[in-house]
Amino acid sequence: MTIVRQPTRAGVRDAAAKIAAILPPTPIFVQEIRGVPVAFKAESLQPVGAFKIRGAWHRLTALDVEARARGVVAFSSGNHAQGVAWAAKRLGMAATIVMPADAPRAKVEGTLALGAEVVSYDRATESREQIAARLAEARGATLVPSFDDAWIIEGQGSAGIEAGAQMEAAGLGAPTMVVVPCGGGGLAAGIVLALPNAAITVVEPEGWDDMRRSLEASWILPVGDTPPPTACDALMTKQVSSLTFDILSRRDATGIAVGEQEIAAAQRWAAEKLRLVVEPGGAVGLAAVLTGKITPVAGMLVVLSGGNVDIDGYARALAAR
Amino acid sequence: MTIVRQPTRAGVRDAAAKIAAILPPTPIFVQEIRGVPVAFKAESLQPVGAFKIRGAWHRLTALDVEARARGVVAFSSGNHAQGVAWAAKRLGMAATIVMPADAPRAKVEGTLALGAEVVSYDRATESREQIAARLAEARGATLVPSFDDAWIIEGQGSAGIEAGAQMEAAGLGAPTMVVVPCGGGGLAAGIVLALPNAAITVVEPEGWDDMRRSLEASWILPVGDTPPPTACDALMTKQVSSLTFDILSRRDATGIAVGEQEIAAAQRWAAEKLRLVVEPGGAVGLAAVLTGKITPVAGMLVVLSGGNVDIDGYARALAAR
Repeated sequence: MTIVRQPTRAGVRDAAAKIAAILPPTPIFVQEIRGVPVAFKAESLQPVGAFKIRGAWHRLTALDVEARARGVVAFSSGNHAQGVAWAAKRLGMAATIVMPADAPRAKVEGTLALGAEVVSYDRATESREQIAARLAEARGATLVPSFDDAWIIEGQGSAGIEAGAQMEAAGLGAPTMVVVPCGGGGLAAGIVLALPNAAITVVEPEGWDDMRRSLEASWILPVGDTPPPTACDALMTKQVSSLTFDILSRRDATGIAVGEQEIAAAQRWAAEKLRLVVEPGGAVGLAAVLTGKITPVAGMLVVLSGGNVDIDGYARALAAR
Repeated sequence: MTIVRQPTRAGVRDAAAKIAAILPPTPIFVQEIRGVPVAFKAESLQPVGAFKIRGAWHRLTALDVEARARGVVAFSSGNHAQGVAWAAKRLGMAATIVMPADAPRAKVEGTLALGAEVVSYDRATESREQIAARLAEARGATLVPSFDDAWIIEGQGSAGIEAGAQMEAAGLGAPTMVVVPCGGGGLAAGIVLALPNAAITVVEPEGWDDMRRSLEASWILPVGDTPPPTACDALMTKQVSSLTFDILSRRDATGIAVGEQEIAAAQRWAAEKLRLVVEPGGAVGLAAVLTGKITPVAGMLVVLSGGNVDIDGYARALAAR
């Protein structure tokens, strides 16, 4: 029996120190919503446009010399892809990324520009897990999961360490409640470990709210067989993992689902009030607060997790009303 | 004869220290253009969405107690308005802002939200200078010019001090060439004082390139009688001042003009590559580099001076191609 390594708060702090050594903190911005100042963590401003760079760096730097020489394989619609490619390039490692054929063009181009090899697959008929596992085995490469991994969770949690320190420095006090976009739950689970005194609410697109339903049921439930279309390519995860679910469940995290029009309205708000380009999946937490599904409270931190958009779809989201 | 106070490098350094005490530095981002890493200073991420907060803070904090009690008056299409309103609010002062009736809605709303009184005028038939001067006289308030003032120029220059330090910390070395959007030239003149070893290129919209023509002629020339329409509301200055012109001219600054489509293309690039919402007037420097009108060189710094957009116009700019 394999003992799965569990992510720890010490690991998150270690990840935060490693990341602080190579990347400046992403800024936080404060805007009032219904009269309450809310802090926004702009992970959209990471070099690859998403928080995924954190987990990738923590994971890849933990590999030994032999493993580094054999390279890494990952599967992702784009943000994890770019995070892994960025970290691999910086460490001089080979990276192969399995990406769906319908991934946003900007994310595919960004991954290629970072020197990674991209292998395409059909989201409807093929299993990215199988393709990636086969590639990893053939090359002796390390498979880097996008969320079901202790290192990845710890790395993503560094965003919480950073934001907590920034909020205290800005006189806002420690975060009391964190609102986090959720695909597989890696970022949310990492933030649970990073901020032991904060309440956590995860937000997903309607129909893809399996973490919300799982937390309510106290049991992991997958998304339905025919989930609706969503602009949130980064959050189209069919099932969360016990690693992420258990951490969120033990903290009594709650889940919220938001609709596509609510997400577009949040993207417009972010452009107008924060002057930030936020991708649909990065804007779901903001959408939950703007709609009133989550009531703003003092000490609220909302994570804007990514900003990689295909510009035509983004222009349509801004124009829609 | 009135002796006009001249802005100085010491004044810029003083302004930078005052601003560092109340605002975190706006981030710089690095992206390659034609293979050359170019640094971007995201002044669009200031609390009011533009660098104007700098000059306003430096000017208003220099007023004595009596002057502070009588308040300030300014005229502006929006960014200087919000900068003055922000500084006045923070200092507990009254602010009256004269704004054109066609100013972007977001800028008017932002100014009102900061507690300022807004007085509207018709850009075509009325003189904002006269309206503002009359208001200032009637109230005993201090008129805060948007660029023709030593304090304002010194304050804006603090962006150059910050960016220079950030580029050196990031291993990019001191700025060798700075590309700056230009309305009245306050930001560009301040940066000349801040960075004595950098070449300066100012960029304006076509037909509003009076600083470019003035620098070529070595004499201040106004814009033509019927300048073309431009999306760059922040850069629609009819004539620069001798304070700003002289500083730029002595540094042998050069000017470049860019077209409206080139500006929209730069806004798209900033959204896609930097995940930043940049207003038309804030994107002209980037436009000049992307079009090749300015060749990227090592140590290049491009200032993205503002990010306040009306969302409908912004969506159209992103959709156009």
